[in-house]
Amino acid sequence: MTTNVLNSQELLNHWQGHRRLTRRVIEAFPEDKLFSFTIGSMRPFSEMAKEFLKMAEPIARGVATGKWTEYGPGLESVNTKAELLRLWDEATEKINAIWPTIPAHRFAEIDKAFGQWENPGIVTILYGIENEIHHRGQGYVYLRALGIEPPPFWER
Amino acid sequence: MTTNVLNSQELLNHWQGHRRLTRRVIEAFPEDKLFSFTIGSMRPFSEMAKEFLKMAEPIARGVATGKWTEYGPGLESVNTKAELLRLWDEATEKINAIWPTIPAHRFAEIDKAFGQWENPGIVTILYGIENEIHHRGQGYVYLRALGIEPPPFWER
Repeated sequence: MTTNVLNSQELLNHWQGHRRLTRRVIEAFPEDKLFSFTIGSMRPFSEMAKEFLKMAEPIARGVATGKWTEYGPGLESVNTKAELLRLWDEATEKINAIWPTIPAHRFAEIDKAFGQWENPGIVTILYGIENEIHHRGQGYVYLRALGIEPPPFWER
Repeated sequence: MTTNVLNSQELLNHWQGHRRLTRRVIEAFPEDKLFSFTIGSMRPFSEMAKEFLKMAEPIARGVATGKWTEYGPGLESVNTKAELLRLWDEATEKINAIWPTIPAHRFAEIDKAFGQWENPGIVTILYGIENEIHHRGQGYVYLRALGIEPPPFWER
């Protein structure tokens, strides 16, 4: 027997809770370290945050419409924390606006996300959330290595 | 309108997929580094893995029964990779055995996990999974800093 354990509204709230925490992690970095500090030839946290932006709203839109379009141009040249946070808040609003337009069947329907990854919509969305948790955890190590206390993981 | 997006069987499969990846991360560490290597006064990855063990099966059992009991004694003294992996596989089997006994209503029911964290069962389970993703991401930084290629994040 299987039981339904999560609905779409709970999933949106959960996702945006994680995105609020990621926003606090971006804020916690000193401006220069956000764009430059790395460990073990990994990317600076700004590059990880840009990856989250490239996935978040495009995933919501792709699951809603079946159209997998890339994040608009210009992201690569973003080099200030303020601009990154502005784009972050813009994505938050867009996801909230797109969410109620996702047809119910699209969460279970298999689609090829960005023309590459064939999964049910829910799996693609969870991948986006968990990829953010994974790399954000790496940002926590960067902050600790810089002697900065990261925001508590459980605060959303 | 809200749509159900995840059922209990899918959640179990998803969780165990993440636990298989974490097992590969434990395996990827050289034995001594697993128990000693740290960055920025954080814990060695062995301590994080022990935390995952303390949460995983006890959470499944707590949501199933309403009894929040701590992981059995002896975990603190574990100091070999083989023993850690043996306990990992033991927990995998226990979670699989407990899972079908979780009453349907317990996923939505609010309970005080371990006498402390008041949340619906699903939120407690997601917290356990995501706490593992978060700290496993930190283990990836340790591996990179050691010059070791971690297992791909998308392989479950």
